[in-house]
Amino acid sequence: MITAADIESRLAGLDEIGNGPDGFSRLSWTLAEAAARAWFEQQAERLGLAVERDRAGNLWACPPVPAPWRAVGSHLDTVAGGGRYDGALGVACAFAVAGELEAPVAVLSFADEEGARFNTPTFGSRALVGRLDAAEVLTRVDAEGTTMAAAMRDAGLAPEGLAEASAGLGRLRSFLEIHIDQSRELDEAGLPVGIVTGLAGRLRVAVEIRGEADHAGTTRRGERRDAMAAAARLIVAAEDLAPGSDFVVTPTRLLVEPNALSTIAGEVRLWLDARAPAVAAVDDWLRSLTDAATRIAAERRVEIALATASRSPGTPFDEGIRRALRDGVESLGLPGREMVCFAGHDAGVLAERIPAGMLLVRNPTGVSHSPRENVDVADAAVAANALAAAWESLG
Amino acid sequence: MITAADIESRLAGLDEIGNGPDGFSRLSWTLAEAAARAWFEQQAERLGLAVERDRAGNLWACPPVPAPWRAVGSHLDTVAGGGRYDGALGVACAFAVAGELEAPVAVLSFADEEGARFNTPTFGSRALVGRLDAAEVLTRVDAEGTTMAAAMRDAGLAPEGLAEASAGLGRLRSFLEIHIDQSRELDEAGLPVGIVTGLAGRLRVAVEIRGEADHAGTTRRGERRDAMAAAARLIVAAEDLAPGSDFVVTPTRLLVEPNALSTIAGEVRLWLDARAPAVAAVDDWLRSLTDAATRIAAERRVEIALATASRSPGTPFDEGIRRALRDGVESLGLPGREMVCFAGHDAGVLAERIPAGMLLVRNPTGVSHSPRENVDVADAAVAANALAAAWESLG
Repeated sequence: MITAADIESRLAGLDEIGNGPDGFSRLSWTLAEAAARAWFEQQAERLGLAVERDRAGNLWACPPVPAPWRAVGSHLDTVAGGGRYDGALGVACAFAVAGELEAPVAVLSFADEEGARFNTPTFGSRALVGRLDAAEVLTRVDAEGTTMAAAMRDAGLAPEGLAEASAGLGRLRSFLEIHIDQSRELDEAGLPVGIVTGLAGRLRVAVEIRGEADHAGTTRRGERRDAMAAAARLIVAAEDLAPGSDFVVTPTRLLVEPNALSTIAGEVRLWLDARAPAVAAVDDWLRSLTDAATRIAAERRVEIALATASRSPGTPFDEGIRRALRDGVESLGLPGREMVCFAGHDAGVLAERIPAGMLLVRNPTGVSHSPRENVDVADAAVAANALAAAWESLG
Repeated sequence: MITAADIESRLAGLDEIGNGPDGFSRLSWTLAEAAARAWFEQQAERLGLAVERDRAGNLWACPPVPAPWRAVGSHLDTVAGGGRYDGALGVACAFAVAGELEAPVAVLSFADEEGARFNTPTFGSRALVGRLDAAEVLTRVDAEGTTMAAAMRDAGLAPEGLAEASAGLGRLRSFLEIHIDQSRELDEAGLPVGIVTGLAGRLRVAVEIRGEADHAGTTRRGERRDAMAAAARLIVAAEDLAPGSDFVVTPTRLLVEPNALSTIAGEVRLWLDARAPAVAAVDDWLRSLTDAATRIAAERRVEIALATASRSPGTPFDEGIRRALRDGVESLGLPGREMVCFAGHDAGVLAERIPAGMLLVRNPTGVSHSPRENVDVADAAVAANALAAAWESLG
């Protein structure tokens, strides 16, 4: 059996890497990431696994048998000011599983899963499935004005090879990931672990509202074209149109012009994030929102343009893998609770091309992307043992 | 009679000062302001008036009789990218009136009425009535990091004398101002000029909403503390609680933290501007808004703090002056239409201490603080002649 102490001792090796007063910051293509790579190499070496770094920066610990392999893993990068467990827990568990099983296990750590530096979430897994526009992402710049191409080169990778990273996908038979729960769902259910049925459907809507900047005092009510007042009505409509408790809508980002104390807002740009287990519900919501925007635009004498900035239909995980994970959990005498995951993950990206699945581990705070995220490592050991049991049934 | 050509020729002298592709930019304590001062001196000299610059930078063209004087004027500074008429029209008309009348007329141009550089509107008139916190405003910095004290010194004024500017108020018996209408009210009424009964009551409310930044996908509806969703509800309530068509509410400025694409807003700061002819209506509105904020805070699990950033009870103009101005307009065969003014003006500041009044001149676009503001100078000549007629009746 994999013990909590096993996982804790592996995790402890990452505790000094990128850790500061505001939490963990292991952004991609930095020295902190290089230090985490050294930890990965050490973990692999102990298990006799050969380490390769592919052209996207993904780390592979390869078993001494010919590919294709079943793999398990997660990521070692964090957001700026993140926690101890998001990503790292899954890689530590993966090495624990590889150490436990006699079957050949590949361990993967995907590059730049958070995408915090260049706004490129699931960078490494998208590169692996061939769904990354390499020419576009390489020209992105971080807050210091460094391009991703330059940052990769600094980290010892040839950016011109990025588009070829997808050649590695053929080496994988399946991918499994253990990850911290980013909600309080498992904690409220009193369960250490849950099986993910799939990732939620997601839509990011970019809204542009054009009114007219004018004097806040002397412009009469009937003559106003107030972009911010219209934005407020649209946010309220976006919320009120969301059906049921498992449909979440968030107004995430809002920019106002001229944003001056005595002036009616002439322009607002707003981004709305909507997620639901089935993307059809999200698409229905967008149709209703478009109708509401038309009505608000007419009432408020503004122009409102809605554009789909990104849309993911949601990724169901492989039925056979879900069943094996459920059997693995139940073999430990625990209920095999299934749940939808509302965040993006590497396993979700891989599921577009190969059988994949995920286990989530209870997080008492429900918080993520923050030092306040929390895990009892005993719960992680439950997940690792369930995954090991599933592995044996997958054969 | 004062002619349109008289006013036009005076205004033309300002056409090259601070004028650029985006409109007029004569910000306070700049070279453009110094050039406008030279124009003022030239205008005064032609009429035999002695020019003084007081300790706040206000320009006085003084008649050759002992004070106290009746004065007329406005301001020569503009916002960045302003129009030809806001302020300048009133000073040009003032010189035209001084040239027309045999009675002694003082002409005043107030410093920094727009307050565009240091957010200090009606700076000069507030200094004159002793309602400026000199120590505080002198430490304010502009966009380039220059303090107001340094800017005044560069413009040849001793900032340490600012607090003494109020000594000049005793030299004034009354103050009259001609100003461009910043609404379409006169244009729609088909009238060249209107008499202002007073300035509207004004309230600027600063709102702080504290929620919790969290993952936009994985945080369930019942657990969210979404500051931006709460802000949208508050803006809608602020509008819906405004009674009648002459009550205007504007959400002017809004700042979101962290304003990131996948994160629930943890904090919003919002400013609301409310104006109505009677300040009691504005105070009632604030009480209702406070109740609404309490309800929204409870429903959305956020904290909402409302603070009064500034409040002006509204300034009624002197009854005798209003009557004289009305008689002056009617003596030209025009209806003496009275109106409330929803913007701030130097005449409104002076009205707190001495008899004051205002005439507004028709603006076909209704736009202000923009090169799109517009005036037919023939309308301004009507206002100047009405003011001259009122002067004679005031004695």
